[in-house]
Amino acid sequence: MAVEIERKFLVKGDFKNLAIKKYSIAQGFLSTVPERTVRIRIRENKGFITVKGISDNKGISRFEWEKEISKTDAESLLALCENTIIEKVRYIIPASNNLFFEVDEFLGENKGLIVAEIELPNVNTTFKKPDWLGDEVTGQVKYYNAMLAQKSFNKW
Amino acid sequence: MAVEIERKFLVKGDFKNLAIKKYSIAQGFLSTVPERTVRIRIRENKGFITVKGISDNKGISRFEWEKEISKTDAESLLALCENTIIEKVRYIIPASNNLFFEVDEFLGENKGLIVAEIELPNVNTTFKKPDWLGDEVTGQVKYYNAMLAQKSFNKW
Repeated sequence: MAVEIERKFLVKGDFKNLAIKKYSIAQGFLSTVPERTVRIRIRENKGFITVKGISDNKGISRFEWEKEISKTDAESLLALCENTIIEKVRYIIPASNNLFFEVDEFLGENKGLIVAEIELPNVNTTFKKPDWLGDEVTGQVKYYNAMLAQKSFNKW
Repeated sequence: MAVEIERKFLVKGDFKNLAIKKYSIAQGFLSTVPERTVRIRIRENKGFITVKGISDNKGISRFEWEKEISKTDAESLLALCENTIIEKVRYIIPASNNLFFEVDEFLGENKGLIVAEIELPNVNTTFKKPDWLGDEVTGQVKYYNAMLAQKSFNKW
């Protein structure tokens, strides 16, 4: 349980050769209500249930609670989820200040969308912006995964 | 993870002296959508997150997944829940065939409502109906706790 501080950017250049790790993610939502989203995720062989609260005004910090569950349980819960199941490949890329970018390359109905997120220890933490980082989209609701599950990138 | 088979009844007589156990429950819902309700519960010193699917036609069997979480986590998640927090005292009462009734005496905005539930190993299991058991209300949506959180008994 924590408050998550996160900034989100589009991606405009090559980044894959910088990745130190990558993994497949499938996720769906039991609730996409912004005040209390409930996400089910399978990341490789692990399952997770995650509850997020509403963002502050700027969309930077947000209540987050996560619990690991079995992959089997996650599969059953994913079958119960509303709308589209989101599939993506996540690349972990080192950033300045011992931080990391998580770059999500979406597949399926969101194919073509690539988004980079960086989680910050506090709201004022600075970090160096690499060349491949595009426009900031922090707080733009249509980029929320909960929204992508309802209105996928291919329908924008 | 299981399919829950349950029948629900009103209560028309004394039952408290038959209870072998009782405990306090506070619960709220992150989602009350019938296809995928997400419940947060505190039962004495334990927390739980529970996901239920939609009922079959008769309202008897229903997908259910539950995970224990810390009481502190449950308190944070309860603060995020929609609408009314449901408070009740649950009495456990032995039934025939080694089964048990769970009788919920609601408090707060649902005060006056008392409901008995019996969980069955399969749909055709029979059990003896004690004198204090009233009309069956299995499958009646207004008695769902998810509905009571939205439209409490005192507003019926």
